[in-house]
Amino acid sequence: MLSESDFIAGFHAIGKERYHHQHPFHLLMHEGKLTRAQLQAWALNRYYYQSRIPIKDAAILMRTDDPDFRRAWRKRIIDHDGDGTRPGGIEKWLHLVAATGLSREEAIRGEGILPATRYAVQAYIEFVSTRSFPEAVASSLTELFSGKLIALRIDALRKHYPWLSGGLDYFTGRLTQAPEDAEFALAWVVKHARTREDQDKAYAALRGKCDILWAQLDALYFAYVEPGWPAPGAFKPAETRTGGG
Amino acid sequence: MLSESDFIAGFHAIGKERYHHQHPFHLLMHEGKLTRAQLQAWALNRYYYQSRIPIKDAAILMRTDDPDFRRAWRKRIIDHDGDGTRPGGIEKWLHLVAATGLSREEAIRGEGILPATRYAVQAYIEFVSTRSFPEAVASSLTELFSGKLIALRIDALRKHYPWLSGGLDYFTGRLTQAPEDAEFALAWVVKHARTREDQDKAYAALRGKCDILWAQLDALYFAYVEPGWPAPGAFKPAETRTGGG
Repeated sequence: MLSESDFIAGFHAIGKERYHHQHPFHLLMHEGKLTRAQLQAWALNRYYYQSRIPIKDAAILMRTDDPDFRRAWRKRIIDHDGDGTRPGGIEKWLHLVAATGLSREEAIRGEGILPATRYAVQAYIEFVSTRSFPEAVASSLTELFSGKLIALRIDALRKHYPWLSGGLDYFTGRLTQAPEDAEFALAWVVKHARTREDQDKAYAALRGKCDILWAQLDALYFAYVEPGWPAPGAFKPAETRTGGG
Repeated sequence: MLSESDFIAGFHAIGKERYHHQHPFHLLMHEGKLTRAQLQAWALNRYYYQSRIPIKDAAILMRTDDPDFRRAWRKRIIDHDGDGTRPGGIEKWLHLVAATGLSREEAIRGEGILPATRYAVQAYIEFVSTRSFPEAVASSLTELFSGKLIALRIDALRKHYPWLSGGLDYFTGRLTQAPEDAEFALAWVVKHARTREDQDKAYAALRGKCDILWAQLDALYFAYVEPGWPAPGAFKPAETRTGGG
């Protein structure tokens, strides 16, 4: 069994390799190379993911008879749904959608999202509903890495797409929410991994979650930028890019 | 299709016939005729039900993409799990368990509960997870009737079992919580029933939930009081009580 510090270091190694901060779509975003239409597609598709996060968290909540865990975890649902007075994450993401020039109704209807977005989100809910409870919790650990990505993104969006600036409340909120959530989840995962097999399952859950995020950007890239990027760990032909399109 | 007022009246008619305020175990309780051991059995078994209520509510929460609904419904989870400073309903029920003279640990372990208690609770979670969403919501409408029962119970427990008085916080809390919850759920069910078939399904859901409550008291009665009581609507032989035991 790995020591606690080695176990934790392993999560960070997975994030370094597989978290979507490396995805070419994000790289283009941060370099200011996306068009308004491409940012619209991103905001629209990602809204579907955001809007299902409380469903995913309720699916986790319903799997434990530990009130302490539920009390800590339900904060995520409140962060996304709001407290009835201040807007939650879902409402804030609609502000971002509006800032791109799309209507909030279009995002709520969800008609224009890519099939792969829907499948990836369904896969996430299915994962936390059917895998072991520790694996469900571990799948949330992408939040260990989101703080850094969001800080970078806020700067990049302000710099390169100043017309979006009115829609960035979601990200500023997550700057404090995500680290709190990640800290709780990491401590829980570390405490409840009793064997090397448990530890490996937690790693696999985080890799699976990274895939879920990565696949959503793949879908955007291939539909709205240009074709051809195998996900990390996926089969790569000798020539990475084909000529087809 | 029934008018709104007739539809609502139908729920109250179901409650009058099938809610567990009529159950012989409750009648004995309210008349002061239960022994301490019988009240221990009740507190222990009902704890299992209480402790699974947030799981049931998370199962409902995860079924809707409506943040307004989720915001209203999550109050139930907070009421039962507590807010981290004041005890929630589950903790308060443990106070009741302790007041009967059983240890809270025994209740939390749940080893001594009757199989039928477990099955009824599982049936409730299964119901809200697999039936239509309006049926899941309608199954909560037993709370329309719980306020009256709880007020009666508080008086009866104080009067007949004064040694229990330190454990009644759960019930005083529910006096305000349950009517709020019932009001929201009833308005939602009324609004979302579009056809007579929808209305009938909501009635069936409430009947099913009444069965779930009734069956738990049956199990207690048959195990700890004496044999022989078919639930309302169940097959009744010409002689209601048999001589066997």
